[in-house]
Amino acid sequence: MITSASNQQIKRVIQLNAKAKSRREEGCFVAEGIKLFRETPAALRDRVFVEASFAEDDQHREIMEEVRKGSFEVVEDRVFEKMCDTRTPQGILTIARMPEYRAEELLGSEGHVPLILVLEDLQDPGNLGTIIRTAEGAGVTGIFMSNKTADPFQPKVIRSTMGSIYRVPFIREEDLCARLDWLREREVYAYAAHLKGENSYNQEDYRKGTAFLIGNEGNGLSDQLAGKAAHLIRIPMEGQVESLNAAVAAALLMYTAHGQRHA
Amino acid sequence: MITSASNQQIKRVIQLNAKAKSRREEGCFVAEGIKLFRETPAALRDRVFVEASFAEDDQHREIMEEVRKGSFEVVEDRVFEKMCDTRTPQGILTIARMPEYRAEELLGSEGHVPLILVLEDLQDPGNLGTIIRTAEGAGVTGIFMSNKTADPFQPKVIRSTMGSIYRVPFIREEDLCARLDWLREREVYAYAAHLKGENSYNQEDYRKGTAFLIGNEGNGLSDQLAGKAAHLIRIPMEGQVESLNAAVAAALLMYTAHGQRHA
Repeated sequence: MITSASNQQIKRVIQLNAKAKSRREEGCFVAEGIKLFRETPAALRDRVFVEASFAEDDQHREIMEEVRKGSFEVVEDRVFEKMCDTRTPQGILTIARMPEYRAEELLGSEGHVPLILVLEDLQDPGNLGTIIRTAEGAGVTGIFMSNKTADPFQPKVIRSTMGSIYRVPFIREEDLCARLDWLREREVYAYAAHLKGENSYNQEDYRKGTAFLIGNEGNGLSDQLAGKAAHLIRIPMEGQVESLNAAVAAALLMYTAHGQRHA
Repeated sequence: MITSASNQQIKRVIQLNAKAKSRREEGCFVAEGIKLFRETPAALRDRVFVEASFAEDDQHREIMEEVRKGSFEVVEDRVFEKMCDTRTPQGILTIARMPEYRAEELLGSEGHVPLILVLEDLQDPGNLGTIIRTAEGAGVTGIFMSNKTADPFQPKVIRSTMGSIYRVPFIREEDLCARLDWLREREVYAYAAHLKGENSYNQEDYRKGTAFLIGNEGNGLSDQLAGKAAHLIRIPMEGQVESLNAAVAAALLMYTAHGQRHA
């Protein structure tokens, strides 16, 4: 049992929670709680930490059987609290290896028509997590995001995804414009919600290969990336609303495509 | 100029930012930043505070002319920072009186078909703010929310609404079930997104008086309130997604109604 907060393993978890650099160097991140332990594929579990009182509690017998199949540590309760990013930790924490994908995988398995999201410099971790969760629900095949987008492996994003982080393939990359060219070559057409859009978002046909471009919360899409879109569309807004929250706009687009494909 | 953080007015702002009870007792709340100063109707401005360096800056001349039309105070920079809830305050802060509405106003002005949201015990301030903002965009005529819903006048909600807090009529109340009866008498029909829903949300006709019921993030709608719905509907979800974020679910419903009404 680990009883000291200065234990190297405890320090490792704290670093992984706090620093994108540590996560990048190790290729690992922290997933807190029971649900996320269950959602983490066994092949990606690096190490699991459980609070002493959690491990001993009879109601956790089943989950402890699963924990014991891999590498794990029991941690004294007061030390465990210090490892956690959440205010009300659930007694279990998983270090997971980052899933890695090839670009082709984001087009979906054979027989699927690609439904892609392209995220440019999204900053809010809650928005990013919500988008990943909604993307799974809407049947998105993959997400390309710019390097400057919030780190998808930070604790708040992981929590907001509710486990979808493991099931929606995504890639962070330098040059989204080049990626749009690559998509176009594969008959995936890019739509950008934009103030200059002509057609309303629900007047287009998304049953062919489709990519939706979502821009930064404050600044929207860069002119450069918007210029690469095959079509500019608009989301109508009543009153004095100038824009919608990025996760809301993304959801409306993704679910419109989903509705057309499952009509 | 106010130069001391122990000044009574400064203490008042800090209390209004921090405590729902203070806001309730005074019937006032704090709106930070330039955009929210502009969005606050002059009739609701109780008092405006500006940072000394903001007031002197020539680029704020126009906004300072507007500020000087009402009751205002200049505050020393280092004291001003202490009044603010945001990390990067913009130098201006408005104490606003809470807008008050009669239930009839939430049905929209004459000639409008009511489009209503009913929120039960929503907890996340970001979700609540995003819902209010999206509601204005989708042409919602009013929002009824339970007493146990997050306080719509707390700083994080106000910021997330981007000003819509002043333009979407809403009422917090004890008994949402009684309110649904009241709505039904006025030919407003309630739809609840529910696991037991039969029709997909986009297969119903929302061109008549419509109310969407949105439940708590963790627990969904109470059986009691869901039982009052005229129709249970479902939002289809692919993969292993069990539910969508509350603001996302609300947005899909509101914008589906908007799309039908403006087709």
